Parts: sequence; structure tokens; C-alpha cells
Amino acid sequence: MLDDDASPSPPIHQMATATLTDNSDSSIVPWCQFSRRVLIRSIVCRPDGGAALAGQNVTVGGWVKTGREQGKGTFAFLELNDGSCSANLQVIVDGKVAPLGQLVPTGTCVHVEGELKKPPEGTKQSVELRVEKVLDVGPVDPAKYPLPKTKLTLEFLRDFVHLRPRTNTISAVARIRNALAYATHTFFQKHGFIYVHTPIITTSDCEGAGEMFQVTTLLTDAEKLEKELKQNPPPSEAEREAAKLLVKEKGDDVSQLKSEANKEEITASVAELSRAKENLERLEERSKLKPGLPEKDGKIDYSHDFFARQAFLTVSGQLQVEGFACALSSVYTFGPTFRAEHSHTSRHLAEFWMVEPEIAFADLEDDMNCAEAYVKFLCQWLLENCLDDMKFMVENFDKAAIDRLKMVTLTPFERISYTHAVKLLESVTDKKFENKVEWGIDLSSEHERYLTEIIFKKPVIVYNYPKGIKAFYMRLNDDMKTVAAMDVLVPKVGELVGGSQREERYEAIQKRILEMGLPLEPYEWYLDLRRYGTIKHCGFGLGFERMVLFATGIDNIRDVIPFPRYPGRADL
Amino acid sequence: MLDDDASPSPPIHQMATATLTDNSDSSIVPWCQFSRRVLIRSIVCRPDGGAALAGQNVTVGGWVKTGREQGKGTFAFLELNDGSCSANLQVIVDGKVAPLGQLVPTGTCVHVEGELKKPPEGTKQSVELRVEKVLDVGPVDPAKYPLPKTKLTLEFLRDFVHLRPRTNTISAVARIRNALAYATHTFFQKHGFIYVHTPIITTSDCEGAGEMFQVTTLLTDAEKLEKELKQNPPPSEAEREAAKLLVKEKGDDVSQLKSEANKEEITASVAELSRAKENLERLEERSKLKPGLPEKDGKIDYSHDFFARQAFLTVSGQLQVEGFACALSSVYTFGPTFRAEHSHTSRHLAEFWMVEPEIAFADLEDDMNCAEAYVKFLCQWLLENCLDDMKFMVENFDKAAIDRLKMVTLTPFERISYTHAVKLLESVTDKKFENKVEWGIDLSSEHERYLTEIIFKKPVIVYNYPKGIKAFYMRLNDDMKTVAAMDVLVPKVGELVGGSQREERYEAIQKRILEMGLPLEPYEWYLDLRRYGTIKHCGFGLGFERMVLFATGIDNIRDVIPFPRYPGRADL
Repeated sequence: MLDDDASPSPPIHQMATATLTDNSDSSIVPWCQFSRRVLIRSIVCRPDGGAALAGQNVTVGGWVKTGREQGKGTFAFLELNDGSCSANLQVIVDGKVAPLGQLVPTGTCVHVEGELKKPPEGTKQSVELRVEKVLDVGPVDPAKYPLPKTKLTLEFLRDFVHLRPRTNTISAVARIRNALAYATHTFFQKHGFIYVHTPIITTSDCEGAGEMFQVTTLLTDAEKLEKELKQNPPPSEAEREAAKLLVKEKGDDVSQLKSEANKEEITASVAELSRAKENLERLEERSKLKPGLPEKDGKIDYSHDFFARQAFLTVSGQLQVEGFACALSSVYTFGPTFRAEHSHTSRHLAEFWMVEPEIAFADLEDDMNCAEAYVKFLCQWLLENCLDDMKFMVENFDKAAIDRLKMVTLTPFERISYTHAVKLLESVTDKKFENKVEWGIDLSSEHERYLTEIIFKKPVIVYNYPKGIKAFYMRLNDDMKTVAAMDVLVPKVGELVGGSQREERYEAIQKRILEMGLPLEPYEWYLDLRRYGTIKHCGFGLGFERMVLFATGIDNIRDVIPFPRYPGRADL
Repeated sequence: MLDDDASPSPPIHQMATATLTDNSDSSIVPWCQFSRRVLIRSIVCRPDGGAALAGQNVTVGGWVKTGREQGKGTFAFLELNDGSCSANLQVIVDGKVAPLGQLVPTGTCVHVEGELKKPPEGTKQSVELRVEKVLDVGPVDPAKYPLPKTKLTLEFLRDFVHLRPRTNTISAVARIRNALAYATHTFFQKHGFIYVHTPIITTSDCEGAGEMFQVTTLLTDAEKLEKELKQNPPPSEAEREAAKLLVKEKGDDVSQLKSEANKEEITASVAELSRAKENLERLEERSKLKPGLPEKDGKIDYSHDFFARQAFLTVSGQLQVEGFACALSSVYTFGPTFRAEHSHTSRHLAEFWMVEPEIAFADLEDDMNCAEAYVKFLCQWLLENCLDDMKFMVENFDKAAIDRLKMVTLTPFERISYTHAVKLLESVTDKKFENKVEWGIDLSSEHERYLTEIIFKKPVIVYNYPKGIKAFYMRLNDDMKTVAAMDVLVPKVGELVGGSQREERYEAIQKRILEMGLPLEPYEWYLDLRRYGTIKHCGFGLGFERMVLFATGIDNIRDVIPFPRYPGRADL
């Protein structure tokens, strides 16, 4: 530990200047700058599998995937993983170095120092670690550990969201998700977009409908009040009457005194009167306290809520980020969004992340160009930065995962109008759709996947949708029946991106709001963007978990977000 | 617009391959890849101010900062800003090209094509744009525009969060904030940390206390039910009695028929009976519906809420991200956090963003090293990538802003124990603190700022705080009276970072939870991290808005977040 009264200069601080990504082919394993170990990735994820590092002394830490004692307890072999990659490092501990029994159970954490050695001919590892010193052990009772070595289903793991990142699959998904998030920022920054933190708590409703979660302090306030009133009940009618009487008496005293008494007596009497008045006031105030929610005209009185009005969790940052686009020109938001829908599907979450760019001086064509370039960039990024994890997904979940990424990076996306898409689907004879296809319907998942998986076998952008099925803020086309909307459909997940050119004309958007039966008042600020210095602009939203599903080939969205929230479940 | 039935190959898509950051000194201005303009930044923010670009044709868009007609309406001079930098481009429009009156009001949006020219000698610009074509105008009625040219206070602008990014200050702050966010990701990615999205909606309470916002659908559900019951009231007692009677009658009918009637009659009669029973059941069910919140044992019954239990907005992602650190070793979260505190100060928000790294195989010293390196990296990043905006802040808000960044990047942070800090503060004679200093107190802002601004004149890390004033998860030191906590204090804002080594010993943390009067049950998952493969680990939290305050020199935290939320206010 640190010396309590000195200002220590930590030695590791000065020593460790190499960064982790310094993963060059030299024979020096880079130290983690802020932890006492080297990354297992920097040993085993080299082209030579680490062979050239033999002879080096390193410190590593990680959790035992599998462990076994051998040679009648002379040695222990541990497959160690530290989450930096899906590959393990083979670690060999001599029984003379440490008691082996506590090292071998799956899930044990070990922090060890030793020498990297070339293993005997014929083994699959290129390098292994001979331990010279065990620095730390975090033991596991194998009888109790919830994640034994046997293969566990993703569904089973959902009951252990705090431990499941220790599994190969969930940790690979976490690294792919991380790569996609950083690729997202890198793409937009590279193209001059400003990242804007749109609000999570909102008093606007982006979709004009939509099930929203309410954010409130009224319920906890009411509970507190109820508790308080139980400990300290409000005054009875009799108490209040008595207090009133006292005020009257003290008042009489004062008026009697006024003519005759001396100053001191008057002052004392007046003081008593004001104390009696204060007491009465307090009682009256407390007698108004009622358990339950504050009400006004038979409705909940939200003027007592934290924000003095009803507030909700955002369903999209789009409307707010438009305000920034109409000032900073190219912006994006990347944050959590929420839907209180009772969907129990493998495609819906109550809390999920969305990427929403918004571009001024741009139309639907620019929007499609941006969406296509962004999705291609993400796929290329994974191929360049996450190939080991992608290979793991191919071997364990989806043979096509890497091919799908390559296809997306290499193939121009098909672009077809909604009208054309409907014609194509109407002429399909080899498949009967559950939902009938005709101009005016919202394409359902089966239609979208047929277009991208069967007809075109590549990503498809469908644009110019009927205005009746789209939101009020989408720009009305000159045909007066379609709006400048576009969806990007990809194999495996269907709709990945939804976007539009926004209606920038003041009269047109006002008319659309009213047409949809929405009140104007909550949108006055949004109308201001059209009233003052309006500009053509467009944007889209990419469901981040959909992208992770697309990349990994995982089937259920609950397995690609660290802490899934859905009806009836919000663990931790 | 797009041809409705074709698959257009957009020309701009193929044409524009240069990216915005291609801001080389060549004489070609790079096009925005996804919008129909070049960035004003790429013209005016060059070492030569754009002089070498004279002769080029460009398209730009932006909002008029100031505009004036000159030469009796022959010309208009516009100072145009597109949010890509704080500098404007001077734009000159000939009266023959467009009517000038609608171009000059402040706030007007113009999208124009023209030739860059060298201005006459003696003007401050290095280049100006002679407009040849006006592509689009978004006009403004100057009598109504809420943000006229006159200098507006930041406080006034808070009533216009949708328009305020058009002002010089708010847009400069937005770009600095953006740079800090990307620098954050870059720093942690560079050092091998995995970005983890911790949950926003949570059923854990990180601090063990703390005012939290509740997330619920119960109130809106109750409102819906109340509406429904008004339209369609529950059955009266009489209706239910009549229904019961009918069931009895139909039952009697059936039993009478059984002996004598034919099969057909029996079937019909049985069918009538079951219809009567169904009707009764429906009525009984509806008669149970009561307006108001669902209750059980006199309390709100949260089993009817969306997540089947009480849920809140997170106050910190730390506990959850620890689960990932105990699997992936080095992780961080960067997301919104919430406090339902009725603080009306210039330093508190109800919704704010936090950066929280967590490192396994690491102790308090590593934690301090990481925090110091991260803060230095942020400052260096702004000096390298945001100098124009920083200069704007220096000229308009805080003369010391750039010097402060330089000082942080160059100076090793002072590291002193809490005990030493208290001794230093106790010996201060030139200042009387409002809060008395003695061992055991929580340092208040005046103490923190005195340490960093007056005594050391640089960032100070105070470590090893008394356990009584810190959270249960901090590691108890061997002296049994302090915990391995550390705070980074910086001039101007005081506490910028708070962190600790976490208590990794199962018995010790269990004892601490109980000592603090907290129940064990909600922390069982957290205890699991110590039960199974525990490891030394540490982490910290950086209040992102505090960092923006520190960098910009802005005084009020409400002006450094796009959409501030505080008691009584949640606009948009």
C-alpha cells in the first residue's frame, strides 16, 4: 500500500510507457500501462502465436477456463483467459511453486509471473507460460460456481448477467460490440460530424405516439410522506380548533393590554400571539397533507413532480439533434433509447442503443450515401480489427458471418423505390407471404428479408414510402402521396437503418402535424427550426443491437447487449 | 428528387471521395461527402486563412451572423457560419444575383455557390466568397427571431435550447465537448479497454442511498384504465346478480333436461349455460377493475409494473461494469447518469454524463496513474485538435483556459494522503474556511480548491480517505480506518475524478455492507464477483460536464450540456 503520509512516485508509472496496442512483432511483450500484467492477446494473437517470445519473463492474469493436475499432482495445466481475446494462454504451474488444488477449478482467477517457453513438439500451442511465482489467487468452489465447464445455453446465461461475460461467446460479442461503437465514432468524426448528447429524460415525444416510460419522483415522494404521516400523524380537528382558540385568546390579551400595560408586557404578549399564530399555520399546513399522489381536478398534479411536468425516457434523439444540425450542419447522437412495448420477441428490447446522424444541406440521396458508407465502414472495421472474434463466431454460431461482412463491404447496395419493391413482391410466386402485399402497406419483416435475402442477395435500400405509414416529419414528395423516407434492409436482420429527408417547409410540416391529429403546441420549438433559417436536412437511425446481431450471427437480441431489459426483467 | 421507379446511381456518391479532415494545404477544398457543400472550416481555418484558395469555385452553406446591404442595395455582405468552426466566411452577393433584403437578417440560412477571391488590401479576411448562384434561402423575420445580433447572456439562452447552438459560445462548447468525448474513447481504446454499455434502467442502487428517479408505466397504465372505465363502466351489483341468476336458471334447465330430452336439446342447453357462465366471469373480472394504482397490502403493487418490480434510473454504472472488469480485465463505460436531487447550484444536473473505467489486476496506484494519464490526454487533445475554439474561450470567457490545459499536460499531479491534506489545511492561516477542518470530515469544495489552486497550483490527487465518509465498496486499508479511495482535484472546478480500489475480499465487503446498515440480498450478485474468482481491481468516475467546465472556463454546468435537466426544468 501507499505510505499514508508521503507523496509516493509510483515506480510502475515511470516504467510502463509501452501501450497495449503496440502489438508489433518485436520480442518485447508490451506491459499494460495501468495494470500489473501483460495482455494475453499480446502474447497469443501474433502471427507466430507467440513463438518468438520464448525466453521472456512476463506477468499475466486471467480466469481459468479449464485446469487439470497431472503427474500425480506434480504439475497443473491451466487454460487462462483474460478477456482480451478469445484465445487462451496455456499456463503450467509446478506443485513446488503453489498448492495446485485451488488453481484448477474453472472460474478461478490467477495472477502469475513466469517465463514464456516453447512447448514440446506436437502440441497445438506456440508458446506456454512456466509459472515461477503465484501473485494472487481468487478461488472458486466448483460445487457452487454457476458456470461450470459444460456448454451452457445463451438462454441459461441470461440468469447470470454479472458472470456471463466470462464465457467465450459473451466476451467475443462484447469485443465486437466495442469495436462497432468505436468504429461508429471514428466514421462520423472522420467526416466532420459533431457528437451531440441528446437528452435521455425528455418532455417531447418523437413519434407522436409510442409507448414511453415515465420518469418520476412522485411515487417515492408519496411513499416518504406516507411513512412520515404514520410516524407523525396530521393534526385532528380538535387540535386545530384548540389552536384557533388559543390565537383568539392571545389576540384578546393583546388588545386588552394595548391601552393600559407597559411596553414590556405588550411585547411579551404580542410574541405569544405570533407563536400561537405560527403554530396554527403549521397545523393547517400539515392538515392538508394527504397520503397518495398530489391531485388537481381529479388528475395527478404533475406540477409537484421533479421537473414540474410529466417527463419520459426518450424514444429517439432525432428531433433534438435536428436543432443542432440546423446550427452545426453535420451532427450525430449515439445513446440509449427506450420503448415500453410488451414485445417478447428476439428482436425487441425496452432499452437499446441508437446511432442517429443528421445532416444539413443534404437530401435523401445524401442520406442513402451516408448510411451505405457507414454500414460498409463498420463491416470493414470488423474485418480489420476483430478478425479473431469473427472467426470464433463463424466456428460457433454462424458460418456465414465473415462472408456477410465481406459481401457488404464489396457490393454496392441496391436502391429501389417502395413502389418498385411492392411490384417485385407482388410478382413472387414461389412463396406465400403471411401478410398480403399491396401498395400502401407497411412492409413486414418477411417482405424485407425476401427482398434482401432472396431477390437481391445483398443490402437493399427502399425509398419513397407512402406518407400514410410514415412519421409527420418526413418530407412530402412532389407526387403528394409518398415521403422521402428510406430503409436499409440487410440479410439476417431485415431493417437495419431507417431514415428520411426531413420536411423543412414550415407550412407543409404544420399541415402534416395537424393531419395526423397531433397538437401543435408541443412542437412549436420544432416548428421554430423551420420558421427561422430553415434548411434541407436529412438523417437516419441505426439500431445498434441490430448491427451487432448482423455482425455476430447471434439470434436473440438479449444476448448482444450487456444488460438486457424487457417486460418483466431488469436484472441488476 | 429521385426517379420513383429507378435505382439511381447518385452522382455525388461517386464524385466525393475526399473526406473533411483531408484539410491539407493543397489548393483543393475538400467536399463534404454527404452534403452539398464544403465546410467553412476547410476554407478559413488554414494557416494562410484560405488565401491560397482564391480562384476556386465552391458551394457553402450556413447561417448569417451579421449581414448588411451596401452601395444602395448593389451588394450584400454576409458573415456566414456553418458550425464547423467559430470563424465566419465573408460572403458577397451582388443584387443582380438575388434579392438582397431576405439574405441579410441575422439567422437567415443561405446555401450558395461562387468563387473564392482575394479581398481588397487592408481587410482582415484572407479570402472571401463572391456568390454566383443562390441555391437555397431559409429566411428569418428579424422582428420575431429570438436571437438577435445583440449580445445575449447564457442565462437568457437557456430558454432557447433548440436555437442556442447557433450562437458562437454554445457552438464552441459543443465542439469542445465533442472533442473530449472522442478523446475519451480514443484514450481507452488505445490502452486496450473495452467499452461496455451499462444499463440506464436499473434495479440496483450503486450508492446505497442517493435520490433516484423512478421509471414506471404504472401511472400511464392507471390513466388509460381510468379513461376506459369512464367510457365503459364496470358492472353494477344488480348486473352481476342478474348474471348469476341466469347461470343458475340455465343450470337448472340442463339438469332438468338430462333425464328426458334428446341429445340436440341438451347440447343447446349446455351451450347456453356456458355462455351465461362466460358472461358472469367477464363481469366478475371487470368488477375487480379499480381506478388508481394497483395495490397489495396497502402498498403499490409493483408486480404490475413493466419490469415486475421497482426500477430506477442509474446513478452510476460502476457496480455493473465491475462484473465486466472481472471477466474482460480492462473496461470502461461512458453514459448518462441521474440524480433526483433538488440542487439548484451551478455545479449539479439531474442528468449528466460519466466516464467510468474499471481495471482488474490493479490497485490504487494504478488507478491514480490511469486517471492522471487520462486527464492529461484530454488536455493535450484539445490543444492539438481544438485550438481555434479554445482561443475563442480565452478571448470571451476565461483568459487562463489555454494556460490551464498546458499546465495540466506538463505538470506531474501532486499526490498526498487525506491525512496530509488535512494537516496542510489545518495550518492555513491566511483564510478562514466556512467548514471547519479536522480529520474525519469530508473535504468540501472550498478545501479542495484551496489545495489545488492556492497551495499546489496544480492538480492534486488526495488518497486514503477515512472509511466513515466513503462508500461500502472501497477497499479497507491495513490501518482499518482509511479506505483506498482517491479524488483528483483541479483548479477551477475542484473534484474532477473520484475513484478507489474496490474491496475484493468477500468477508470484508460483506462486513462493510452490513456495517452501513444495507441489506445483503440486493448485493448478492455483487458478492458473487468476490465469491468466484475474485481479483484486485480499481476504477474511477470522471464527471464529463465537470471536464467541459474545466476546459472551457464556463461557469454554469447548464451551459455545457446540450439539454440541461434540473429541478423544474426539462425542455424538449
